[in-house]
Amino acid sequence: MTDTEDFEAQRASNAKAPITSTMMAAPLRVTDILRRAEQIFADQRIVSRLAPGVVETMTFAEAAQAARRLASALAALGVQQGARVATLMWNHANHLVAYYGIPAAGAVLHTLNPRLSPEDLAYIIADAGDDIVIVDEDLLPLWRQVEAHVRPRHVIVNGKPDAAHDIAWSELLAANALADWPEGTFDENTAAAICYTSGTTGRPKGVVYSHRSVVLQAFGTIAPDCFNLSARSVTFTLTPMFHVNAWGLPFAALMAGSVVVLPGPRITPEEILDLIEAERVSIAFGVPTIWTGVIQALSGERSWKLPEGLMLVSGGAAPSPEMFRTFDRHGIYLQTGWGMTETSPIASQTWLLPAHGSLSDEERIKVRASNGLPLPFIEFRIASEDGTVLPWDGSSQGELQCRGPWVTQNYIGHPAPIPATTPDGWLKTGDVAVIRPDGYVQLVDRLKDLIKSGGEWISSVDMENAIAELAGVAEAAVIAVADEKWGERPVALVCPRAGTSLTAREVSTHLQSRYPKWMVPERIEIVSELPKTGTGKLNKLLMRQQLGANG
Amino acid sequence: MTDTEDFEAQRASNAKAPITSTMMAAPLRVTDILRRAEQIFADQRIVSRLAPGVVETMTFAEAAQAARRLASALAALGVQQGARVATLMWNHANHLVAYYGIPAAGAVLHTLNPRLSPEDLAYIIADAGDDIVIVDEDLLPLWRQVEAHVRPRHVIVNGKPDAAHDIAWSELLAANALADWPEGTFDENTAAAICYTSGTTGRPKGVVYSHRSVVLQAFGTIAPDCFNLSARSVTFTLTPMFHVNAWGLPFAALMAGSVVVLPGPRITPEEILDLIEAERVSIAFGVPTIWTGVIQALSGERSWKLPEGLMLVSGGAAPSPEMFRTFDRHGIYLQTGWGMTETSPIASQTWLLPAHGSLSDEERIKVRASNGLPLPFIEFRIASEDGTVLPWDGSSQGELQCRGPWVTQNYIGHPAPIPATTPDGWLKTGDVAVIRPDGYVQLVDRLKDLIKSGGEWISSVDMENAIAELAGVAEAAVIAVADEKWGERPVALVCPRAGTSLTAREVSTHLQSRYPKWMVPERIEIVSELPKTGTGKLNKLLMRQQLGANG
Repeated sequence: MTDTEDFEAQRASNAKAPITSTMMAAPLRVTDILRRAEQIFADQRIVSRLAPGVVETMTFAEAAQAARRLASALAALGVQQGARVATLMWNHANHLVAYYGIPAAGAVLHTLNPRLSPEDLAYIIADAGDDIVIVDEDLLPLWRQVEAHVRPRHVIVNGKPDAAHDIAWSELLAANALADWPEGTFDENTAAAICYTSGTTGRPKGVVYSHRSVVLQAFGTIAPDCFNLSARSVTFTLTPMFHVNAWGLPFAALMAGSVVVLPGPRITPEEILDLIEAERVSIAFGVPTIWTGVIQALSGERSWKLPEGLMLVSGGAAPSPEMFRTFDRHGIYLQTGWGMTETSPIASQTWLLPAHGSLSDEERIKVRASNGLPLPFIEFRIASEDGTVLPWDGSSQGELQCRGPWVTQNYIGHPAPIPATTPDGWLKTGDVAVIRPDGYVQLVDRLKDLIKSGGEWISSVDMENAIAELAGVAEAAVIAVADEKWGERPVALVCPRAGTSLTAREVSTHLQSRYPKWMVPERIEIVSELPKTGTGKLNKLLMRQQLGANG
Repeated sequence: MTDTEDFEAQRASNAKAPITSTMMAAPLRVTDILRRAEQIFADQRIVSRLAPGVVETMTFAEAAQAARRLASALAALGVQQGARVATLMWNHANHLVAYYGIPAAGAVLHTLNPRLSPEDLAYIIADAGDDIVIVDEDLLPLWRQVEAHVRPRHVIVNGKPDAAHDIAWSELLAANALADWPEGTFDENTAAAICYTSGTTGRPKGVVYSHRSVVLQAFGTIAPDCFNLSARSVTFTLTPMFHVNAWGLPFAALMAGSVVVLPGPRITPEEILDLIEAERVSIAFGVPTIWTGVIQALSGERSWKLPEGLMLVSGGAAPSPEMFRTFDRHGIYLQTGWGMTETSPIASQTWLLPAHGSLSDEERIKVRASNGLPLPFIEFRIASEDGTVLPWDGSSQGELQCRGPWVTQNYIGHPAPIPATTPDGWLKTGDVAVIRPDGYVQLVDRLKDLIKSGGEWISSVDMENAIAELAGVAEAAVIAVADEKWGERPVALVCPRAGTSLTAREVSTHLQSRYPKWMVPERIEIVSELPKTGTGKLNKLLMRQQLGANG
């Protein structure tokens, strides 16, 4: 257009034409996270504890080079675009290398949970159609049992192979040149990673994360009101890398340029505290069972000089209010949230608003022990059994339903995917929740863990938290058993702390001070251990079976 | 699959089948930011200073309701999907309402810069094809001049209209019901907003942001290593909302749930400090010219009790190292970065790595005064004139080139878009930079602002920074003038602080202590003011013209 033209004629004409974005078509690709980390955080460290007293360090630049060698090695082994490459590995730097090297080869990362049974693992490998598997040396005995059922084309051993058909990781990487990072046009909805739910009933079900969903969750979780990750953070990922991609931390921490500390296999609470102290960890991630152990260690004879401002993030199950109080006393900030395999998993985190500053400590802990606020672009609602959407009034209870760009629509299925949502497209989580007027979600219970006694609901989670307040209690589980008269009755299983004595009568007296008489379990058992699922959650299904209950 | 089936046969069969992501197709849509803010940050505040002493507050819930009324009002006025709705408004809550109400109507937000000439505005409106314009009452005199050239279908006046064909904003909103937020399938690459570059040469050129690019930049900027925005932040957006969408803050701040403080028109440095004090601002955003004024106010007679940890973000031009030192002395942290209209604009921010902790204050300021590290998924490179990509060695100088999901590929053009990139798809920024081995970018100069004298380059930015170190200097510009013998010679224009005296000889003596003799300008002029562009940058084009130079 020149100055002498008729602006109004141009305007009117252009206004009739559609307008399109002029932005670049730049895909969100997982491998770009490590590509950037290699460029601008080259010397940042990945610290792996491999065994008691054995700690190794790898830089981001070294990890990136290893990932690029793994990518070319996989290509040389004939791995095709979209092939599934499984890992059966603990949390350490080589597993992190596989997190990027596998997608860099155009393949899909499938993390296997070594706490599952060999048959469940074989089922999962068959269901996902894994082409190659990478196994930690010390998991070879388990792998040999899995191999009785399935035979992926190649087995790569991180360590020393004990079978002729295995390939050694180190030799494989040494023999292959650096691959280039993937570049150019790319559909960001391509599969990047597969995880299976560790459902306590039925077979595990698989969800497939896309490059887009992984990257968007990483953006969501590095935010100040989620994990607050920066190049000054030191992250300690105790949540297993075979469990929902360790909450996306292998992606988020490298995006933020944070130091990565990884615990390897079978770490003790004392070693956890040693590493937090030695590496000046700023934020550590794990399930409540881990933190229960850490609390026990902290109340023991040893003492640690922990970094100021240390924050722990708890997920996978709800920490009790007492756990918040205990860590507060130790000057450690505990934060929780909510998520599941189907939500990648981080859907919400429980951070405080300025308005909470005026609350009493106890009221504030009530907020902190809730399941928090959804991350940007994640949405929550609650719905009754007939699908009615319920109000955010803090009292209406319904199934928590969820949607957003890192929430699953389906599970893997053959020949067709298995739907995971309501007809209008919200994930059915199976969790029962209330939503407060300010948007904070509070899980009431798992649908199947609510106890219905005489037509009234009893929340097992609430009663477990009440029992945990008793001095001397390490953990408690409250489950439903069938009852001829009441339909269901609660039974409490209580595990005392090491070295303390505790009686069923003490637990009963405590509960009677807190609950109406009809709610207090007639049957309270003191046990030395509570059965857990492969991911460290209370295995209520097993407890019900052991009690001959209605599970 | 059942337990009795052959896992290996299943595995082999499934391995041959492609696998697709099971994630939801959930688009990144700008309006979802305010939809979430309405739900979970309902009471959060937007504080608008409308005139000296006049401050109004609107909550996020009120803003969301107004945006939904604006959306239904625009629909009632016949605004079609993809139509352009322009704003000629200052920074205040109603402008923020328009930022969301316009896309909620399916239309495209086009912010107009009231500092441009009426003819340039008419050109831009014609080029974009604007359908409707929303004008602040006090900008009506300017609008009447624009209207001489172009006549959008409707003019909505935020305030009292002075022409029969105008519509009053308040009456329009009162007359229309709440629209629902947009839902359902949606192409996130749809146009969301248009901004024009304020190029100092030639006509302004338009770029079109998509919903996707706006949302991704918001995710990128709320991160701890960018603007660190949370629900505890109080943001003060001095950068105009008509200038590159105020660096995306109207989107990022609401995504984070931060308090939004907006300065309205023609705010003085003293009023800026008043608002920072009164609203306990945690982070303020503006161009160096704003901060120069604030420094002058801080060194005056009045004093303010400023919030602890106050951070200022400077963009649009490089703050001098002296500005960092001065704010450090006041206990205020200044941060800079780099970006342009073509990059939405935030492409990099200059935050420090733990390794910088061991630097001296002066070395650290050198890092802080650089242009920092790219945000995730933004990439930089430097290239010579013939297109050779140059090394990150801290000394090779080349054009800074950039790519990523919020970087433009083209400019608006009729009939076809105007390319903005190299043949291999990197934005040509026109800035000359070096990249250090650690990835920090350092702009050397605008291509056109480098001075070539006797075959050697002189950096005008570097010399401007050197002059700014002199006590008594408010601002300085160094520009090239044609010279028969040397090709070009630098000329310095120096503006002293109010109430100080400064001579050309003092400036020359200072520069001789810093530069080889041949670099020191023969011509140094003390001036009372430096001409600025519509966006507050030094208008070197005008200076060259005024000096009869080679601009």
